[in-house]
Amino acid sequence: MKRYEQFADEIATLIREGVLGPGERIPSVRQASRHHGISPSTVFQAYYLLENRGLITARARSGYFVREHARRLLGEPRVTLQPNDPAEVEVSELVFSVLDSLQDDQTVPFGSAFPSPELFPLSRLATSMTRGLRELSPQQVVADMTTGHTDLCRQIALRYMLGGIQLPMEELVITNGAMEALNLALQCVTQPGDLVAVESPAFYASLQVLERLKLRAVEIPVHPREGVDLEVLAERLEALPIKACWFMSHLQNPLGASMSKERKQALYQLLKQHQVPMLEDDVYAELYFGSTPPTPVKAFDDEGLIIHCSSFSKCLAPGYRVGWVAGGRYAEAISRLKLMTTISPSVPAQAAIADYLQHGGYDRHLRKLRHALEAQQGSMLAAADRYFPAQTRITRPAGGYFLWVEFPEKIDSLRLFNMALDHGVSLAPGPIFSATQQFRHCVRLSYGHPWTQSSERGMETLGRLLALF
Amino acid sequence: MKRYEQFADEIATLIREGVLGPGERIPSVRQASRHHGISPSTVFQAYYLLENRGLITARARSGYFVREHARRLLGEPRVTLQPNDPAEVEVSELVFSVLDSLQDDQTVPFGSAFPSPELFPLSRLATSMTRGLRELSPQQVVADMTTGHTDLCRQIALRYMLGGIQLPMEELVITNGAMEALNLALQCVTQPGDLVAVESPAFYASLQVLERLKLRAVEIPVHPREGVDLEVLAERLEALPIKACWFMSHLQNPLGASMSKERKQALYQLLKQHQVPMLEDDVYAELYFGSTPPTPVKAFDDEGLIIHCSSFSKCLAPGYRVGWVAGGRYAEAISRLKLMTTISPSVPAQAAIADYLQHGGYDRHLRKLRHALEAQQGSMLAAADRYFPAQTRITRPAGGYFLWVEFPEKIDSLRLFNMALDHGVSLAPGPIFSATQQFRHCVRLSYGHPWTQSSERGMETLGRLLALF
Repeated sequence: MKRYEQFADEIATLIREGVLGPGERIPSVRQASRHHGISPSTVFQAYYLLENRGLITARARSGYFVREHARRLLGEPRVTLQPNDPAEVEVSELVFSVLDSLQDDQTVPFGSAFPSPELFPLSRLATSMTRGLRELSPQQVVADMTTGHTDLCRQIALRYMLGGIQLPMEELVITNGAMEALNLALQCVTQPGDLVAVESPAFYASLQVLERLKLRAVEIPVHPREGVDLEVLAERLEALPIKACWFMSHLQNPLGASMSKERKQALYQLLKQHQVPMLEDDVYAELYFGSTPPTPVKAFDDEGLIIHCSSFSKCLAPGYRVGWVAGGRYAEAISRLKLMTTISPSVPAQAAIADYLQHGGYDRHLRKLRHALEAQQGSMLAAADRYFPAQTRITRPAGGYFLWVEFPEKIDSLRLFNMALDHGVSLAPGPIFSATQQFRHCVRLSYGHPWTQSSERGMETLGRLLALF
Repeated sequence: MKRYEQFADEIATLIREGVLGPGERIPSVRQASRHHGISPSTVFQAYYLLENRGLITARARSGYFVREHARRLLGEPRVTLQPNDPAEVEVSELVFSVLDSLQDDQTVPFGSAFPSPELFPLSRLATSMTRGLRELSPQQVVADMTTGHTDLCRQIALRYMLGGIQLPMEELVITNGAMEALNLALQCVTQPGDLVAVESPAFYASLQVLERLKLRAVEIPVHPREGVDLEVLAERLEALPIKACWFMSHLQNPLGASMSKERKQALYQLLKQHQVPMLEDDVYAELYFGSTPPTPVKAFDDEGLIIHCSSFSKCLAPGYRVGWVAGGRYAEAISRLKLMTTISPSVPAQAAIADYLQHGGYDRHLRKLRHALEAQQGSMLAAADRYFPAQTRITRPAGGYFLWVEFPEKIDSLRLFNMALDHGVSLAPGPIFSATQQFRHCVRLSYGHPWTQSSERGMETLGRLLALF
């Protein structure tokens, strides 16, 4: 990372932590240069970057100021969960009816699960595809189906190593995206009828998988910043024969919650004590806004209990369908199940990504992507501030591309969903994030697309519709 | 097809049907030219092609002769099946122990499930990948995950149309190879504990899928040329609550059997009468040796009962992992299940194949591939003739790349498998093709690789080992 990027990150942290408040003036270029012992041009570059990231704004003749939207006018969601018994999951029909309605590309895509494909280096990836295919021998095309593309496996293991995790290559299974990884893993550690602890609210696709495999959900509440409630989890692990957990330990979908390192460690100890395996769904790992990558629970795993699943779909190569699982003690079972169900993800797609990781400038792309998402978050938060009712509560996650919005109780998000669609705006209604269809007055909004006039109008429309309740 | 290719096919048919016997002289160029009213150079080209296909051989100064291996010295397998009750399937461990041992690329690959990747136009496909990616808009990359790559779907529907099947586009689901298609389809039409009719012998992976889904197998014997025994099937459908069938109606793996059109029609009537859906596993559809493509059972389907699954893995693009299912009345359920488990196969791989189908010369490649396989079959049959005991019985399928070999009863194919591996030769032992591990004295041999000295030595080695029993 360049010096000006470092400096920009320092200022960003001060803003995020509230040391520099909204509307407040930040040090002048001259002050900053003198104080930090860096050249004025470095400070300029840093401020320019922060402006692009939507964190500060320049006012003619008066310097740089922290942007107003950084003001947390809207409170933090409370996420209250009605206590409930382990539940049969029946959410799939509802989820599909929501997803089907998102197909229209004229709609403002606040309901979308994918960030805009324009944020990804698709043409650079195409170059990597050409190179990757050139270097792929005919024999490898067949052999890599069983073992995964060798260079790709090496590159992934290398990234674990940089994150402080020594991953034996045998533990790695390349899959058709993280979704296949999670599906395979859950099948390997459960039988129909088993109990699985899930977050509440949870990523709706995880609930669909439970439903499909006839598993019952034990909902564990998630704090909007601190993540899964460890006290409730401990109590449930004690009381119920839970066979597996499916959690996202940072940038949880939909809340954006990220557990602290200490809480992750405590979570692991709890799982170890009960010998319960955990699927760690870590697809947003690379989308953090701060300067240090988060540590997954997998880092504490000394018994192969954590099944760490991720992919390149949300951070590099949508549609390539390349993910992986570091399967711990379940790696062989997962690999065999993969061979029996889909055999292998596309080998050319693996070769393309392997080449890109080696030569494409992945870290540079990731920095750009994170800054874009952070700026888009700022714009959406500012718009929520302008158009949503004052009692609205909203998250402000340190990464990813989702906001969780808690409206006053009288708002029915399923009705809002239909009304908004009629007005050309999509959103993800709260009940699809719960096995027991709670969170009726909540929605998840995506800021994964570049902010445009139509995004702004979309938020305004939602505001107008909310006033009708 | 060119005139000389047509003429070569006519001669090939005469050889296959025994009109021209092994060792027999075929008409001289002058005779043929006069008799058929074609130029001598066309006849020359045809004979040259037939020589390449391994069907005829030139002898100096005496003309062309039908190759000796065409002599059916070895009889046809009898495939006797011990009657058995619906069976829990437990074959997976055995299959994996066999597959694991096939990883060594120094081994003569008679046990391989894939044809040699050298038989495929990999560099032409790479060109199509570059073009396909160039034409893929960022929006499509995401949209195509739900619906499949539009051009690819069109190209597949077009090929159905050329085969006389009008397929509504909505019936088509693009999958991660045929294996995913079959897995999804079977899950959509069964519940754990259900009975499924399978062929015996059957493709081992289908048995693994039954085992994984806790389904019970009703084994229906397969005649080595005529395919699944319809009388037994009718009786079983009458007597048992069979929920689905999983059949290969032509070039059945491992026997290579191809049902006649009449028998396919009769099979469909039987299924319709009992309202039992059938998974038609049709991955070898393009690998027929004759001049007319076989008609799938799907062609007779007027009620959406036939779930027709195929892929490009065995005929064009190994490792790309692009297959499909024409799901009949189950199409929507299959599509949803796909979205819940793997979301989508790789979009770039779909784009590459779509471009290849439009511009790559698919039919030319297929003709070349079929001729190569036919020549390789000839070489393997001739070697079996030379090295295997006289009581050996062997198939002579009209396509694909597998021979089914029935040895004298005293041969234990699992022992033979281990002995052969020690000598650097792989094969697929009979018991992995049966839910009840029958066929102990049978093996499946692949001629999917170009015939070399090492193939010849491999057959000789097998012959020597067989003599030790």
